[in-house]
Amino acid sequence: MKLSDIGEFGLIHRIAPHFLQNQPDDVRGIGDDCAVLPLNETESQLITTDMLIEDIHFLRDGITARQLGYKSLAVNLSDIAAMGGSPTAAFLSFGLPEDIPVEWLDDFFAGLAELSQKSCTPLLGGDTTKSMDRIIINIAVLGRARSDRIKYRSTAQIGDVICVTDFLGDSGGGLNIILQDINAEMNPNARQLVQAHCQPDPQLQEGAWLATYDAVHAMLDVSDGIESDIRRIMEESRVGARINVDDIPISTALRSLAEQFGWNAIEIAATGGEDYCLLCTICPRDFPVIARHFEKKFARPLFKIGIIEKEGALAYYQNSTLIHFARHGWDHFRMK
Amino acid sequence: MKLSDIGEFGLIHRIAPHFLQNQPDDVRGIGDDCAVLPLNETESQLITTDMLIEDIHFLRDGITARQLGYKSLAVNLSDIAAMGGSPTAAFLSFGLPEDIPVEWLDDFFAGLAELSQKSCTPLLGGDTTKSMDRIIINIAVLGRARSDRIKYRSTAQIGDVICVTDFLGDSGGGLNIILQDINAEMNPNARQLVQAHCQPDPQLQEGAWLATYDAVHAMLDVSDGIESDIRRIMEESRVGARINVDDIPISTALRSLAEQFGWNAIEIAATGGEDYCLLCTICPRDFPVIARHFEKKFARPLFKIGIIEKEGALAYYQNSTLIHFARHGWDHFRMK
Repeated sequence: MKLSDIGEFGLIHRIAPHFLQNQPDDVRGIGDDCAVLPLNETESQLITTDMLIEDIHFLRDGITARQLGYKSLAVNLSDIAAMGGSPTAAFLSFGLPEDIPVEWLDDFFAGLAELSQKSCTPLLGGDTTKSMDRIIINIAVLGRARSDRIKYRSTAQIGDVICVTDFLGDSGGGLNIILQDINAEMNPNARQLVQAHCQPDPQLQEGAWLATYDAVHAMLDVSDGIESDIRRIMEESRVGARINVDDIPISTALRSLAEQFGWNAIEIAATGGEDYCLLCTICPRDFPVIARHFEKKFARPLFKIGIIEKEGALAYYQNSTLIHFARHGWDHFRMK
Repeated sequence: MKLSDIGEFGLIHRIAPHFLQNQPDDVRGIGDDCAVLPLNETESQLITTDMLIEDIHFLRDGITARQLGYKSLAVNLSDIAAMGGSPTAAFLSFGLPEDIPVEWLDDFFAGLAELSQKSCTPLLGGDTTKSMDRIIINIAVLGRARSDRIKYRSTAQIGDVICVTDFLGDSGGGLNIILQDINAEMNPNARQLVQAHCQPDPQLQEGAWLATYDAVHAMLDVSDGIESDIRRIMEESRVGARINVDDIPISTALRSLAEQFGWNAIEIAATGGEDYCLLCTICPRDFPVIARHFEKKFARPLFKIGIIEKEGALAYYQNSTLIHFARHGWDHFRMK
């Protein structure tokens, strides 16, 4: 039996027992954006790590070195944001082909340093090694959070409003532009989408702000697309979910390009992934107040896209009618 | 200019400013086996991360999956040992080709779990992703240590005795056996060397024990070979060193195989690398007592191999005569 027969989630289920062995009682291991370890009476440490491999996660010609340096850190910071924490340090492991131009490396580190400074996440160590032909990047980030404010995937409650902190699908649209070799230079909409894909900004302030509300029950970052990410909340919280397709927030830029190139904007928004905004579930009684304050603070709405229901299938509705999606979320070991 | 033109140390010097930017005063970043962050009044956190790439660090046919799982964790634990710390948690990022047999994965995790349990290092998270063709493993390990007992590379003193905690070169000899396709099945010496290469045991107890002595000044683990590793102490401590080639401890197994196959045992011992024992520098006054206690506790000598001298070149002596080595330590971006 090959890995491709069981897929990423099959693999995780298969190896989870090894991860959970010897796990101290006060520690949270796999099953969330970060691992959580107690630091002291009131605070916990967060740890996350992400691997980016050339030709799997990025194309050398599809992203500048500077953007790649920025994004490599951003995807990890987004996991810290998803738990409501603040980053404290980053560690980079870097596998590099020998023929990489030194200027490419300078640009990569300039991008990494830019976000490192902006987010107060000093780069404190790592490992550099030769790789045969592809660039391989692994970043691990440490963070901290007040233990009573950490948001998990497992704490959604039936009746919660499901909401997202930003437009969805810009990154997926940007990837389309790169893969379809569309010239984005002269098209501001296209540039916006490529930027969203190549240089996402982790929503650390939004995550820390949402974490101050007890009424925010569950949270994660939108990395694989809500179609896939909402299922993780469903699985961990043992609940169902209903998404109102018409409520999925889509930017004017994506709408316009989808029309121009014949893309399905809703499908891109639901399954494109790599948006790196936050998805959270909020007590319906408190949602209006939190949404109002969010909009005041961050100058954009907290978009309501659905409702947590009792355990069951993920249901998409359009004009109050149940509909089906053809595509499923991103599984790294199966082709869609 | 290509990466291969500047080499690994050129790269590290080039990127170090990015790492050191924004580094808090009470934090130690690059330049040692682990980064060191204060945890509380008396304790610090240690962080280390290592990337292993198929065909660079291992051959799929040259090591069993179980050994590879064990070794992937061992090389990180060895960095924790080198600072005198205890490991607390491990995080695995795993890049996997789709055609990997599930049984291979089961064996890998069995090996990883074996050392995880033996060393009380629970595996608390990570990332799994597809890779195009090669297996890529990145493990990050957290540890802790009493801040006043942490051993650095930068604290060697002139006159210190340089010693190692085990035989050198068994791992390098084991690699020779694998690369030269020598059948080790029927040869216990060859099996011992292959075992040393494929399944090294991190010297956590030795490291923690040595760290209790103030007279142990500097310490690191022998990962690239003493020829290369001693230079790191020289650079960080701004000292020189003199190695007595006749004192380099070589196992009977390596001696015997070197004779059989015409290898230069001393060269393998000095430059082979991946021994994952510890190299430390000890105040000459205290060395005899510490060495006696070490031998009593660990049932093998603490091998004296040289002396720390004032800043200058690394000097090898044989029968009191200065000699030269043809090979240099392992630089991941230059071929020897």
